[in-house]
Amino acid sequence: MIQQEIPYKIFLTEEELPKQWHNLRAFMKEKPAPFLNPVTKQPATRQELEQVFCKELVDQELNVTDKYIDIPQEIRDFYKMFRPTPVVRAYNLERALGTPAKIYYKFEGQNTSGSHKLNSAAAQVYYAKKQGLTSLTTETGAGQWGTALSMACAFYGLDLTVYMVKVSAQQKPHRKALIETYGGTVIPSPSDTTHVGRKILAENPGTGGSLGCAISEAVETATQTENCRYVLGSVLNHVALHQTIIGMETKAALDKYNIQPDIVIACAGGGSNLAGMISPFMGDRLEGKNNIQFIAVEPASCPTLTRGKFAYDFGDTGKMTPLMQMYTLGSGFMPSASHSGGLRYHGMSPIISKLYHDGYMEARSVEQTKVFEAAVTFARSEGTLPAPESSHAIRVAIDEALKCKETGEEKTILFALSGTGYFDMTAYSAYLDGTMGDFIPTEEDLQKGFASLPDV
Amino acid sequence: MIQQEIPYKIFLTEEELPKQWHNLRAFMKEKPAPFLNPVTKQPATRQELEQVFCKELVDQELNVTDKYIDIPQEIRDFYKMFRPTPVVRAYNLERALGTPAKIYYKFEGQNTSGSHKLNSAAAQVYYAKKQGLTSLTTETGAGQWGTALSMACAFYGLDLTVYMVKVSAQQKPHRKALIETYGGTVIPSPSDTTHVGRKILAENPGTGGSLGCAISEAVETATQTENCRYVLGSVLNHVALHQTIIGMETKAALDKYNIQPDIVIACAGGGSNLAGMISPFMGDRLEGKNNIQFIAVEPASCPTLTRGKFAYDFGDTGKMTPLMQMYTLGSGFMPSASHSGGLRYHGMSPIISKLYHDGYMEARSVEQTKVFEAAVTFARSEGTLPAPESSHAIRVAIDEALKCKETGEEKTILFALSGTGYFDMTAYSAYLDGTMGDFIPTEEDLQKGFASLPDV
Repeated sequence: MIQQEIPYKIFLTEEELPKQWHNLRAFMKEKPAPFLNPVTKQPATRQELEQVFCKELVDQELNVTDKYIDIPQEIRDFYKMFRPTPVVRAYNLERALGTPAKIYYKFEGQNTSGSHKLNSAAAQVYYAKKQGLTSLTTETGAGQWGTALSMACAFYGLDLTVYMVKVSAQQKPHRKALIETYGGTVIPSPSDTTHVGRKILAENPGTGGSLGCAISEAVETATQTENCRYVLGSVLNHVALHQTIIGMETKAALDKYNIQPDIVIACAGGGSNLAGMISPFMGDRLEGKNNIQFIAVEPASCPTLTRGKFAYDFGDTGKMTPLMQMYTLGSGFMPSASHSGGLRYHGMSPIISKLYHDGYMEARSVEQTKVFEAAVTFARSEGTLPAPESSHAIRVAIDEALKCKETGEEKTILFALSGTGYFDMTAYSAYLDGTMGDFIPTEEDLQKGFASLPDV
Repeated sequence: MIQQEIPYKIFLTEEELPKQWHNLRAFMKEKPAPFLNPVTKQPATRQELEQVFCKELVDQELNVTDKYIDIPQEIRDFYKMFRPTPVVRAYNLERALGTPAKIYYKFEGQNTSGSHKLNSAAAQVYYAKKQGLTSLTTETGAGQWGTALSMACAFYGLDLTVYMVKVSAQQKPHRKALIETYGGTVIPSPSDTTHVGRKILAENPGTGGSLGCAISEAVETATQTENCRYVLGSVLNHVALHQTIIGMETKAALDKYNIQPDIVIACAGGGSNLAGMISPFMGDRLEGKNNIQFIAVEPASCPTLTRGKFAYDFGDTGKMTPLMQMYTLGSGFMPSASHSGGLRYHGMSPIISKLYHDGYMEARSVEQTKVFEAAVTFARSEGTLPAPESSHAIRVAIDEALKCKETGEEKTILFALSGTGYFDMTAYSAYLDGTMGDFIPTEEDLQKGFASLPDV
């Protein structure tokens, strides 16, 4: 049998666009623990959640039984604007590294509207519109989520207010302008437009903010505005669910050529990109159908999985959200101003946290300068400028490929290239100039964060 | 017969990637006039051209007889990193406009390395490498060409110096950083690193530069460096030839669904994107096989076709290049600092100039604020942030679609979306803030440019 030649890019047709999301929790024997009401410490009720979130999203959030959930035709039509995305064989990176490993990546950066974040934005705004809402609030870190949601709101005709982590808004004025081009209103956070923002500013004057702060502000505004809800770009189960379109497409594309990955790698901030990528592969693993090595990669500056605690915690700094059992550095942890704004979150998807806790996946933390070294190697060989966040996955993919070079193993390595680095040229310049530093929290920094954990 | 449903994006497979470029001049009964040596006023010889350009590119430059020219397999392999690109049906823009017209666009912005400019960069660096050269020089305006060439040089291992129009380097520091990330050296032009640069600076202190100035500097450096040649990102015949991969793919994709455009639209700076898009369609037109309306769109601030003269002129401000017969505003014309750096060139592809002069196509000039109005409409409906340059084509596509809305005609409109607007957020912000102006040269400005035309 002649081995079919693998193209540079494996594309599915629009007809082959998956018709269902993959609900990983239904495959897990031990489910993630339920959210708790922070006051009563009892499981959060559907009614409580619906005060903050859209109804249908709450349904998805609580659904731990259906293995697959249908994607409405309207959302599939939206997806067709930018999906299916290609699975790319990194022939040129392999050659540059001189590795016998076969490297593939799923490239989510071919849209100009928040890369992979659009997968969930398209869904969330659709459900909000269907529910009759007229406006939404959210937070954004690196700005991908804010961009995606702004584009989706423009498409469906909803108003949007984006609380953007202040340090990101300052580092990336052009990202802010892009969100505004799509029609969203951007407020750097913490701001004086909310109670919680004013409180945080009073306690931490001069703070550059964090995703945790921005979430608090967005939740407060949503709950005090008529016909408005809060939407989140990561962490929650329904966001991870929408992102499984990444993994579903990847698996379908690889199956066409009988390719089975040995290692699957993705960066992890809130965990939705990672969960989205690994979901169908992990589902098979949980059913004993493969023995894939899964690696979550996080920045050494915000080492949630590798140095955090598995505990109940708030999703936000203002302690307004339900409590979630997850790996966390504590909602009071203030990450340093690294160049990977999308990974600067104290917590982690409860699904990912549970899988990691139960030993189904590994986690590695990597330093910023090593990440950019990998990013530049990738750009110069594959021609694509990666986002700093995504470059965490590239770093570990290269490390694994170089190990194969030593051992001679021909492993198949798959990673998620979740976005592009167009808005990160300040960071690239700092790397090229040699002025980039690595920020690694001290034990004292971590203890300060852990001190904010609630008693449960 | 049931009409086959047209997908959002028509992709060719990598196998279907065209194997040949389309040499439009071979289809033209009247050819563009030959280049002239500026001193002797005689046709420039192959030997003269080879002092500045790579040999094989000179062959292509002078070839007016072969209708198709083979694309070397190595270049096709390079193309596979980012090609074939999709032809997109703008269903959502059609809906937003309420037009009966069918709008399609060829999207060249899915790579992070100079969008369509990579089509020629891949080819030119390949031939340079094959010839044994070790370094190249070039100019760049908006920065797409410099980015593309830098990436291609990184890939093939050649050194690169990019003279970047000073005003663009200032407006777009991130574009400069991107070129540097791929390994190229960027020098804002005019600079004091060349004789011609120092001369231009002395005569026009404080000038923001122009493509014409940058070309002079790059040519001077190339001719004075061993194993070095100058490469150009537009205007010349061989660049237009490489760009025909755009039109060849587009035609192949549309043919799959029996789609015949009534109107084909592209923006025109130096003309290579336009020539690349229209080439196979125009070839058929010249053979009497269709009656397509072709529209070149240029900025009102640099109205080469609509207000220029058809004359022999230099390609650069320093008057170092051969003379080309083309539409020109005069190499001494200094365009105002508009936000479409890629279209600020005094001349125009001799192929496009000749076709326009002979009545085979139309030209329209559009004002900057109208262009950005179209860009924002496009972004909010189609989800893709267009480059200001490309948005000139969008403006006219929308104008034509709105005419159809009035008349009820169901025309099929095709345009080239040559790149994305990631590095143009300053411009978008100015548009959204209402601080953007339109810059239209006075008759006096034009006369000043025409005064620089040489006697031939």
